[in-house]
Parts: sequence; structure tokens; C-alpha cells
Amino acid sequence: MPTPADTLARLRAASPLVHNVTNYVAMDVTANALLAVGASPLMAHAPEEVEEIVAIASAVAINIGTLEPAWVEAMEMAAERAVALGKPWVLDPVGVGATPYRNQVAGDLSGMRPTVVRGNASEIMALAGVAGAATKGVDSTRDSSDATDAAERLARTLGCVVAVTGAVDYVTDGTRTVAIANGHPLMTRITALGCSTTALVAACLAVTPDAVDATAHALAIMGVAGEMAAEGAPGPGTLRLRLMDALYQLDDATLRERARISE
Amino acid sequence: MPTPADTLARLRAASPLVHNVTNYVAMDVTANALLAVGASPLMAHAPEEVEEIVAIASAVAINIGTLEPAWVEAMEMAAERAVALGKPWVLDPVGVGATPYRNQVAGDLSGMRPTVVRGNASEIMALAGVAGAATKGVDSTRDSSDATDAAERLARTLGCVVAVTGAVDYVTDGTRTVAIANGHPLMTRITALGCSTTALVAACLAVTPDAVDATAHALAIMGVAGEMAAEGAPGPGTLRLRLMDALYQLDDATLRERARISE
Amino acid sequence: MPTPADTLARLRAASPLVHNVTNYVAMDVTANALLAVGASPLMAHAPEEVEEIVAIASAVAINIGTLEPAWVEAMEMAAERAVALGKPWVLDPVGVGATPYRNQVAGDLSGMRPTVVRGNASEIMALAGVAGAATKGVDSTRDSSDATDAAERLARTLGCVVAVTGAVDYVTDGTRTVAIANGHPLMTRITALGCSTTALVAACLAVTPDAVDATAHALAIMGVAGEMAAEGAPGPGTLRLRLMDALYQLDDATLRERARISE
Repeated sequence: MPTPADTLARLRAASPLVHNVTNYVAMDVTANALLAVGASPLMAHAPEEVEEIVAIASAVAINIGTLEPAWVEAMEMAAERAVALGKPWVLDPVGVGATPYRNQVAGDLSGMRPTVVRGNASEIMALAGVAGAATKGVDSTRDSSDATDAAERLARTLGCVVAVTGAVDYVTDGTRTVAIANGHPLMTRITALGCSTTALVAACLAVTPDAVDATAHALAIMGVAGEMAAEGAPGPGTLRLRLMDALYQLDDATLRERARISE
Repeated sequence: MPTPADTLARLRAASPLVHNVTNYVAMDVTANALLAVGASPLMAHAPEEVEEIVAIASAVAINIGTLEPAWVEAMEMAAERAVALGKPWVLDPVGVGATPYRNQVAGDLSGMRPTVVRGNASEIMALAGVAGAATKGVDSTRDSSDATDAAERLARTLGCVVAVTGAVDYVTDGTRTVAIANGHPLMTRITALGCSTTALVAACLAVTPDAVDATAHALAIMGVAGEMAAEGAPGPGTLRLRLMDALYQLDDATLRERARISE
Repeated sequence: MPTPADTLARLRAASPLVHNVTNYVAMDVTANALLAVGASPLMAHAPEEVEEIVAIASAVAINIGTLEPAWVEAMEMAAERAVALGKPWVLDPVGVGATPYRNQVAGDLSGMRPTVVRGNASEIMALAGVAGAATKGVDSTRDSSDATDAAERLARTLGCVVAVTGAVDYVTDGTRTVAIANGHPLMTRITALGCSTTALVAACLAVTPDAVDATAHALAIMGVAGEMAAEGAPGPGTLRLRLMDALYQLDDATLRERARISE
């Protein structure tokens, strides 16, 4: 079974092109996180070219944060093309549960055979249709452990891998569930780290075929880098800067020592 | 009368959800500033969901920086819904005076009962229709003190609070005017701090009902954090990082000691 | 012949307003780079106002990174207006070669009399129609030296200045070619520095009429600031922060000492 260090080494060797159809807030930090870790980001959303971008990319990340109909059309084209070409794609259903429109779009996209769905506990519970799942905007109102049942059910229903991120992250394909206990609470004070993690999952899928492994490795890489960045950081400004440095500097030994992945 | 420290404490306790319909340049720094200070940011602009987002938000910030017709439609829907639901909303008329289109949009939105309008001196003078008010792009060509007359007139005409930010900030409801003498000149070398301040005004309105007080407190919080961040900063890169740290670290004692609000 | 230090001094004295019609990823860092160096950025793209924004700007930068038809319309209006008003405009054909749509848009815009075209080696070779020019997303797969022939041909065909940036940058009008050997490899790990450089070229064109000189000076300024920023930087997070500080702090003596421009 490959380790996070294996995935990171392959990612840096291959520098996979990750096509992002993502939200306006997340674009800068997502592109920088991918570049820092060693991947190659590309943002493009015009229906006129989105299928051809998918064709040259190694993986696709679709994020509905600042959705609108024209972008949703591009997201659906990108998802469909990725499946047709056998390329992995990851869905980030930002804020699902907050509005009927968002529910409809997230529901439609989740039915288009994503390789992985990554969200916080509220989002995964909302997407799973769990009774009582409440979303307050884009930040989670539930612990990730509350959502593991919903995640497993969702994974089986969609036939994909589901990742619930929070204090502890869970990755499941519906039968096998892995927990990743990395990260730091201060990371919640920076915008779009969840979105960046989704893009990193896509990058890892490009080099590690097993989707549970690839996703767990991405979460461990982001979590360990976040821990390194948070040490002694006086606030979120410093944390964000150091996170980019840590993604760049992260080495095998550190990752092996600090990654806390358990089945 | 509540102090800035009272407002900050309430903001951190409540973590109000602030709905932003804002410009592309400002999204990242605005979301990060709100998260750093303790609020919960949400960016959404689709007419398909904008009213429902307003319904779950505690306050709304509308910013015309990179306006286009589809976004203006969403801004108007959000403003109207906020008023209907009795929620505070803040208008940032970025660059008003620069083009007829921008004047028309800012004029229309200003007539939709904003709780607060925040701009630089040129913008407030342009919005007030003051003769000779010139705007050079989005940066102010006037001192904020030149605009206090225009601000008071505008506040009375619109029936709202108007804030003019600059070397000294002024907040007025047309009869009561408050000055806030915090901040640092280096802050003008970072993009979108004005836009972030507008969002912080919205966050403060969610927890402090008096709009003059809430606005003055927001400006003091941003100004004091900016001063803390600027101390010894070699340039705007460092300032921006430290500003996020300062918004996170800012405590009651520092705010009480350094806030310079005068009636 | 003016030096980079002359251009920088004039830029800081005049603080030219630079109108950017650029991509979503680049907006924040571009605006901050322009502010840090002493220029005044403005982002606007609505057809309703784009021509009037050009009229008040000193130079225009057009960047197709996250293009879509509505934005392309605005880009073409801005380019046409800039030419009509005799204002310099710079084209950044991000990712040309990646899709037919991108090729068509870049081709159309390149025919609208840009003052300068700036791209990486793959982009310039693709735009020149050089056989075998391959683009992998938005990052260059060619060395900039491979593209000098293509750049010279393109400059003569379009009747403009062409800049190829890479480990060494080349600027040519088809007969005179200048090399700039500044910069640092770590700069490739931050998103949108090429886009920011394009905007800086526009700012320099506003104060230095000779387009080869202005472009070479912009590349030297960005390159020297990047070198200063990279010294001892543990990663791209630190580099980006220090780059903003360096653009702000850069003085004549440092620029004279470190700029490596050769004919």
C-alpha cells in the first residue's frame, strides 16, 4: 500500500496538471497551494474550451462555492468529459444545504460519477440527505465524526469515495474507512483551505490510482503542512504564509513521522 | 454607550454570518479579514439563491468594484431582501464618479435604504453630487475631511449612516458625527482594505444595533489592527500578513488603549 | 537612453492608473504588486463602462487567463479604445496553444495593435504559429531562449514589442532585442507573477514611451525585486510576501547595481 510520502514523491515528479472550475474566493490560494506542493494548476471555465482543458489535464476539481448557471454548465461539461476520458474528478459541494439552488446543483453534480466528494460535516450530511443536517453558510456546524455514517451511506449510494474534513478527517468508499488526525484549529481561520484541499485531492488522484489512498494522502499532506505552519504562528496571516512554505518544504521524513492515518 | 471592545467581544461570541456580494479583487482578503476577526464570511451572487443567502445571514455587504449587469441584479435583490427582513446592509460604492454606469448603479443602490454607506472622500463626494468631486479610479483624490459636509448631506438625504475613510475617518448620520483617528498610511498600499472594512462594518452591525456606533467601532478595529501591523513593517506584504494576525490577536485592552474615537 | 531607475522614479512620481481586464486568479496579486511599486490599479470589465475606464487610465493590461465570451468582448472594446486614444496596451495571451478557443481569442487580440505582448516561451511560440510549439496548461514547457526567433518574427508581423519571460527574459521589436537576466526560479512557484509583470509593463509604458525600454525596465524591476525576495526564503509563501515588500522598498541604487540588461 502506498504511503503519503510515495504519493508526494510521485506528485512532485509528475507535476500533474489540475484543472479547477472553482470559486472566486479560492482561486488564488488554491493555485498557490498546488504550485507550492509541486502540481501545476489551471483555472478555466468557459464552455467554449472547458472540455479541451479537461483533455489535457490529469485531474479535475469542481467547486460550487460562488456558483451561477453559466459556471454550473461548465462544471457539468467538465465532469462529463472527465468521466468519458477516464480521468479522476473531485466534487467540493461548498455550502450545500444552505439554499435549494445549491442543493440542486450539488445533487446533480454528485450524480455525475465523481471520483471523490470532499466536504465538511454539514455539507456531507446535507448532501446525504440526513435529517437534521443544518448548514450555517460555508462553515461546518457539525463535527466530522457525526458525519461518518452519512459519508459511508453517501459513498455507497454514489459509488465514489467521500471525505469529511474537520478536527479529524474521514475518508470512506462505503466499506473501508480511514481516519486522518492531522491539521490545526487555526486553519479554520483562513478562507478556502478546504477548497485547496479538494484541489490537492485531485492532484494526488493523478498519481495514486486508489481513491481512498490518494484522498487520505492529500488530507495528510495538507494536515501535516498545516501543523508545521501553525507552530508558534501568532495568527492566520502567518499561518497562510507558512502553509505555502510548508507545502513546498515538506519532505518524506517529516511526512512519515507526522502523518496520522488509521484504518 | 457601547465601546469598540464591547462590539468586538460580541462579534467574537456571535460569529455573525456576513453575506458579501463583492468584487473579484476583494474576495480573498475580505473573507480572510472576517475570519481573522471572528466573523463568518459567505460570498454568493447568483440571483437563483441570493435572497435565501440573505435570509440566513446576519448582515449584508454590497460592493460594486467589478460590477456588471448580472451582479448588479443580484446586489439589488440582496439589498431589497435585507431591508424586507430588517437586516443591516452596507454599500461600498467603489469608484463612483469614474463612469456614468458606475454612477447609475451606485445611485440606484444608495436609494435602496442601506444602513451604512462607506467610501473614500472622492466616492462620497461623487455620490453626494458635490460639485467638483473628482475620482481617479478607485483611489481617493481628496482628503476625508473635505468630504464631511458631503457625507452629512448624503446621510440626511438617504436617511442612513455615511462613513468617509481616509487619514481620519468620519462617521455621520447627518446630525451626529464621529471621527476615528486610527490607521496607517501604508494601508493604502494594499488592495481592498476599504472593501474589507466595509465587510467589517456589516459584521459589527450584526451585533451592535446603533449604526453610528457599529460603524465607528469597525473603523477603530480595522485602524488599530492596521497600526499594530504597520509597526516596523518593511512594506505592504508584511503589513497584509500582520493585519490578519492583528485582527485575530486584537484584545480589549489594546483596543481600549489605542482606539481614538471622538464626537 | 533611460535606465530602469529612471522609469521607476517616474512611475512613483506619476502613479499611473493601470486598467486591468485580467483573470480571476491574478487580480489580487496584480493589484497588490502595482500598489506596492507605486502605480494605481483598477480592475473593470463591464462593456457598459470599459471604454470610459480606458479613457481615464494611463495604460491598459489585457490578460486572457480565465476568459469567457463576455469578458473577451470587454477586452476587445478596451483594446480598440486604447489604440484610438493613443494609450499603450499590453496583451498577456495566457495559455494560448492550449485550446482552439484560446488560440482564436489570442489571435484576434494580437491583431488589435497591442503595444506589447508578454508571454512565456510556449505562449509566444504558439502565438507565432511556430511548428511544434506545445503548451502544457499555463506553465511554459520551453525555455525562453528557444522562443527568441519566434518572438522576433511575431514582433515584426504584429508591429509591436514582444517579451518572452523565463530564466532569461527577452524583449524585441523585431530588430532590436534586449535580454534581462534577473529573477529567481522560486518565482515560478507563485501564481500570477507573469500576469503581474504584464501589468507592470503597462505601468512602465505609461511613463517611458519607448516600448522596448519600458518593457525591459518592468522585467528588470520585477526580476530584481524577486531576487531580493528570494534571498533566504524558505518557500513561496515567504517569497510572495517579500516580493511585495521589495517592490515597495526597491531603490535606485539597488536597481542600478542588480539590473542585468544587455542588448
